[in-house]
Amino acid sequence: MKEIIAIIRMNKVNATKKALADIGVCGLHAMKVLGRGKIHVDLSVLHEMGASEEIAGIVTESLSQGSRLIPKRMLTILVQDNEIDKVVNTIISVNKEGNKGDGKIFICPVLDAVRLRTGERGEAAV
Amino acid sequence: MKEIIAIIRMNKVNATKKALADIGVCGLHAMKVLGRGKIHVDLSVLHEMGASEEIAGIVTESLSQGSRLIPKRMLTILVQDNEIDKVVNTIISVNKEGNKGDGKIFICPVLDAVRLRTGERGEAAV
Amino acid sequence: MKEIIAIIRMNKVNATKKALADIGVCGLHAMKVLGRGKIHVDLSVLHEMGASEEIAGIVTESLSQGSRLIPKRMLTILVQDNEIDKVVNTIISVNKEGNKGDGKIFICPVLDAVRLRTGERGEAAV
Repeated sequence: MKEIIAIIRMNKVNATKKALADIGVCGLHAMKVLGRGKIHVDLSVLHEMGASEEIAGIVTESLSQGSRLIPKRMLTILVQDNEIDKVVNTIISVNKEGNKGDGKIFICPVLDAVRLRTGERGEAAV
Repeated sequence: MKEIIAIIRMNKVNATKKALADIGVCGLHAMKVLGRGKIHVDLSVLHEMGASEEIAGIVTESLSQGSRLIPKRMLTILVQDNEIDKVVNTIISVNKEGNKGDGKIFICPVLDAVRLRTGERGEAAV
Repeated sequence: MKEIIAIIRMNKVNATKKALADIGVCGLHAMKVLGRGKIHVDLSVLHEMGASEEIAGIVTESLSQGSRLIPKRMLTILVQDNEIDKVVNTIISVNKEGNKGDGKIFICPVLDAVRLRTGERGEAAV
């Protein structure tokens, strides 16, 4: 079993939940996170634009302040190994707009699971 | 070492914290999540009840809207390998009521840990 | 690739984000958590201080109430394997004050990642 962690735009949560329910994946957890993705500062471009060292420094400094964390939703979904591809593809299909900030998926190992209602463990608890 | 992630009812947090402290497990983190477990729509039951295809479709559609995420608490607890069973059993003993929504436990691998106060790593940091 | 999870003081978030940006690590997610670290109740010390069994019981009971969860920030950072040390050392350098509550770092395995904007997978998505 695996944990699929998806960080997506807030306005994509309902469509993602619906798409997952449509493929039979109903169990998930959502939480608020603040996030930012990678930023690539291409200093050579700044220089070509005529930016002085001072300006380049200000741009880099400004970006590194890291004040631009924006609200996102993190979804965590426990899946059987054979469900990974359909869950990942479903999340991609709803969330891939081709823009920065579309988000990211991580797939993490899970060693065991327990359903608290019954005490069931392992695959039966997924 | 492992990370035990427990998603439990909000009204079980204090009893769970106390039960864990009673077995000597004091270090934990709690966060708000919204969650739902698996939903099993048994269409044959709907049909036996005399539900039309239209009604069955509405029920399925309604469930798949996924608007029923309910507030839960996620606890994360870093443990030594030999503590897993007692922590899991303690969480089960407090949270198993036999009802849907009792929650779930995942056990995830952790490769290394660092105690920031001292810089200690590995088992010593758990 | 790995996920580095750091639980730090709230007043260290900006300095940590800046320090990470300074070493080229811009992608991270932050969320609110409530946490507490380990508490060591040394009963023999209580007894040497002349504490009765009753007092020792009250102290232990009081600690086990677990009402002392305090607000923290959890940062999650997806990194390449060769970035682990510099990220961990940077987080330590900003957050190690030598006091209880400085926080903790966990390093967890990640099996795969997907960049939703492009659909890239694996190391390319980190």
